[in-house]
Amino acid sequence: METITSAQNPKIKKLLALQQKSSERRKEGLFVVEGQRELMHCINAGLEVDTVFLCPEICDSASDWQGGNVRPDCRVYEVSRAIYDKIAYRGGTEGIMAEVRTRHLSLSDLHLSEHPLIVVLESVEKPGNLGAILRSADASGADAVIVCDPLTDLYNPNLIRSSIGAIFSVPCVACSSDECITYLKEHGIQILTAQLQDSHLYYDIDMKCSTAIIMGTESTGLTDIWRKAADAHIRIPMLGQLDSLNVSVSAAILLFEAVRQRS
Amino acid sequence: METITSAQNPKIKKLLALQQKSSERRKEGLFVVEGQRELMHCINAGLEVDTVFLCPEICDSASDWQGGNVRPDCRVYEVSRAIYDKIAYRGGTEGIMAEVRTRHLSLSDLHLSEHPLIVVLESVEKPGNLGAILRSADASGADAVIVCDPLTDLYNPNLIRSSIGAIFSVPCVACSSDECITYLKEHGIQILTAQLQDSHLYYDIDMKCSTAIIMGTESTGLTDIWRKAADAHIRIPMLGQLDSLNVSVSAAILLFEAVRQRS
Repeated sequence: METITSAQNPKIKKLLALQQKSSERRKEGLFVVEGQRELMHCINAGLEVDTVFLCPEICDSASDWQGGNVRPDCRVYEVSRAIYDKIAYRGGTEGIMAEVRTRHLSLSDLHLSEHPLIVVLESVEKPGNLGAILRSADASGADAVIVCDPLTDLYNPNLIRSSIGAIFSVPCVACSSDECITYLKEHGIQILTAQLQDSHLYYDIDMKCSTAIIMGTESTGLTDIWRKAADAHIRIPMLGQLDSLNVSVSAAILLFEAVRQRS
Repeated sequence: METITSAQNPKIKKLLALQQKSSERRKEGLFVVEGQRELMHCINAGLEVDTVFLCPEICDSASDWQGGNVRPDCRVYEVSRAIYDKIAYRGGTEGIMAEVRTRHLSLSDLHLSEHPLIVVLESVEKPGNLGAILRSADASGADAVIVCDPLTDLYNPNLIRSSIGAIFSVPCVACSSDECITYLKEHGIQILTAQLQDSHLYYDIDMKCSTAIIMGTESTGLTDIWRKAADAHIRIPMLGQLDSLNVSVSAAILLFEAVRQRS
C-alpha cells in the first residue's frame, strides 16, 4: 500500500479540491466522506467508494469499514498523521476519508410508501441546515427530501457532516419547483406550506394522509408559486419575542407532528 | 466622539479578549453583543450596556438602538471599517457591537407562570446548541432554561449568535443538578427526562401540568441523578437508520408537544 507523506501529492490536492469546490465535485463526479460511521452509512446505501485514505496512526481497524460492500477496484492509500490533519474537515478524530461517486436521484427514482411523508425545501441556503433536516427526515421515517432550485450542491462537506450520514439513508432529489409541484399533484400528495400569513396552526391539520411539508429559504421564505400550489398553509405558533425558528428546527417539529398523528 | 482606527487600541484589545475568553468575561463582568436586533433585545431585557462600538460606514442609523433604554454613562466609540471587520464575529454586516454587563440569575429569581414549562440541560457542551435551544424556548413560551453544571458560559459569542437574542428574552439560570432537582420538586414541577431506555413515547405523556424537560449532553446523555429523579422517561421515536437527533432539535420537538397539548 502506498503511503502519502507530501501535501504536494496530486491525490491530496485533488481530495482538497473536492472538499472545497462544488465545481470540482461536478466535474469529477466525486465527493468526500469523512469518518467511519459516515462511510459505513454510505457503503450501506450502495454508493461506490472510489478511493480511501487511511491514517494508520488514528484508524487502527481498517476492517471496520472493509466489511462494507467496497468495490474490488477501490484504491486505498495510507497517509501520515501530518497529512491527515491537513485533509480532515472535522479536525481528524477517526482517521478515515474516502472519495465516493456522486449519485443523482430524480423524482422518478423515488419509491414512495402508501402514505408518503416528504420534506420539500425551496432554495435552502445553508448546507448545515439541509444536513440537519436530512437527519430529522431520517428519524421521522420520511420517504424523501426534495430540494427545489438548490443553491448548494448535495455533496457539500458541511451538509454531509451535519447530516451525520442521513444524506445516504434518506433519498434526496434536486429538481425545479415546477417539476416538484407536478409530481406531488400527480401522486395525490397534499402540499402544506410553512408560512406565517393566512395559515392554520400546524397541529390542526391532518397529516395522516400523503403529505409534503414545504419550507422556504431562511431569508425570504416561500415564493408565490408554492403558496399558490398549497392545499393548506401551516404555521408554528411563536409565543415569545422572536419572530422565527431555525428552518431545520421548524422542519423537525412539523415532521414529528406527522409521526405523532400517524402513531 | 472618539474614532478608533488602530487595532492596537486597548479598547479593541479588550473587546477581542471578551469575545474569545470566558475567563476575561468573568473577570470583567462584561460580554459582547453584535448586531442591531440582538442589541435591541438586550436593552429591552434591561441589561446594562457599558460601551458601544459603531462603524458609521455600515451602521447609518445610530438612532435605531439609541431608542432603547441605554444608560446615560454608556460610552460610544466610532471605529473604522478595517477595525470593524477585525472585531466583528459574524463577518460584520450591521456595524454595531457593544460590551454589556453580565447578569447572573439564580433559581430564586425566576417568576414562574401557573403551569410552567421549563427546559433543563445537563452539561450541554456546544454553545451553538444551547443558543438554538434558547431560541426554541422563546418560541414555545417556556418560562426558563436551566443549565446544570454548565461546561460553557452563558455569554459565549456562539451561544449569543445562535440564540439570535433569546438569551436575553428567556430567563436562563446556571446551577447544580442537585439544586435544580430540589427546586423542581419543591415547586411541584414534573420531571421528564429525554432518554431512549425504559421510556414512553413523548406524545403519550401529559405535559399540560407543570413540566420540566431534561436533556442530557450530546455525547453521553443524562446522568443517573436525573434518571432517578424523573417522574417519567420520554423518548422521540427513531424511525430511520440513525440513532439520535441533535439535542436542540429534540428539545424543540418536546417543547412544541407541550405547546400543542396546552393549546
